[in-house]
Amino acid sequence: MPTAAAVIIGNEILTGKFADENGPYLIRRLRTLGTDLRRLVTISDDLDAIASEVRRCSEAFDLVFTTGGVGPTHDDVTLEGVARAFGRSLVVEPRLVALMEAYGVVPDEMTLRMARVPEGTVLEESQASSYPILRCENVWIFPGVPKLLQMKFEALAQRFAGDAVLTDRLYVTARETEIAVPLAEIAARFPNVDIGSYPRFGEGDYRVIVTLESRDPEALRQAVHALRGTLPLREASKPV
Amino acid sequence: MPTAAAVIIGNEILTGKFADENGPYLIRRLRTLGTDLRRLVTISDDLDAIASEVRRCSEAFDLVFTTGGVGPTHDDVTLEGVARAFGRSLVVEPRLVALMEAYGVVPDEMTLRMARVPEGTVLEESQASSYPILRCENVWIFPGVPKLLQMKFEALAQRFAGDAVLTDRLYVTARETEIAVPLAEIAARFPNVDIGSYPRFGEGDYRVIVTLESRDPEALRQAVHALRGTLPLREASKPV
Repeated sequence: MPTAAAVIIGNEILTGKFADENGPYLIRRLRTLGTDLRRLVTISDDLDAIASEVRRCSEAFDLVFTTGGVGPTHDDVTLEGVARAFGRSLVVEPRLVALMEAYGVVPDEMTLRMARVPEGTVLEESQASSYPILRCENVWIFPGVPKLLQMKFEALAQRFAGDAVLTDRLYVTARETEIAVPLAEIAARFPNVDIGSYPRFGEGDYRVIVTLESRDPEALRQAVHALRGTLPLREASKPV
Repeated sequence: MPTAAAVIIGNEILTGKFADENGPYLIRRLRTLGTDLRRLVTISDDLDAIASEVRRCSEAFDLVFTTGGVGPTHDDVTLEGVARAFGRSLVVEPRLVALMEAYGVVPDEMTLRMARVPEGTVLEESQASSYPILRCENVWIFPGVPKLLQMKFEALAQRFAGDAVLTDRLYVTARETEIAVPLAEIAARFPNVDIGSYPRFGEGDYRVIVTLESRDPEALRQAVHALRGTLPLREASKPV
């Protein structure tokens, strides 16, 4: 089952100038693709921060997605950061220069930075655009503009797919402190089922939402059965 | 100027079961408090992930905020993760046991985990609640439930305050590739002003939003003046 990390690059998110749309999008899409997003990190346009985060994610996860910092301006340092993560040089990719020129971009010291990629970068073609997505090892380098990211991600989505995750949830009327012991016992009995417990205050006729998820339908069914036999539930506990 | 990092702990965010409300809240509040949020990380309920992220953030930033994972259930492992981050033992804090009992919580193997804190943890009192916020070194350990987090954060907010940041933004009618060179020159001339460039597509009568921010009002004014004299702007470029 592929694991993934997303690295959202941009001061504008951390300073609240723009709300992050890319993190929530990747959470949702990777979920429906059945790929486990394990880490979502928002960092500033800082070379060292990018390099160290990308290196760490690349080692720990199957897929790494970066968003942002790939334009021509001074605050676009993602390509340089990825190069540093892998200890590689930046090299001018002539096919990117040609594509930029075809888009009417005049090559100058700044715009050429968009074509200066980490050595060994693969140009991944898709239906989305004649301009490819750059991939360096397992790091997929996406633009930060949400519409562009989404268009390009959708065109490549099957490359990132895993197995579907099945879920259920129960609405518990007791307090979390009252169910922690039996919940822990059942969680230990079903290691293939991820059981989460989330207290809620003033939301309705329940005090805790217990969620279950698994890629094993029979284990999920048995865990739900065990919890239903143990926890005090409100009447209509419905699936997600 | 204090720097900060936020560590959002919870599978439920990464799997899209619940939208993250705590990250956006901390972004907004730290911004108005004038404190620089440099890193926002969402990780799963995993001991090693928590320990390594907390250790790294604690070393790199003045303030670290964790949210989530402090309840009594099996998926609440934040206190153990923070202890591991600092290489400390967990010790039962009798004042927390007494407070839990006062809330009507029966001490058992699971609920007592809420009172087992990293050695040297400080109980930070506030007006928000008789139940304190736990702090281990520069790591402030907040609950994950958004309402509780916000109530407790507000009560302690002045402890986290820095200096106000001044901002402005300009709406540029040229493409980003056409302004990158002069923008880089002006950004280099004003090192105390953080200048960001964000391409936008189909949003209105502009193609790029250029943002400026600084704690130095005169530097900000001069940088805005320089950009206004250089970039093609739409008519009504208004302050944020």
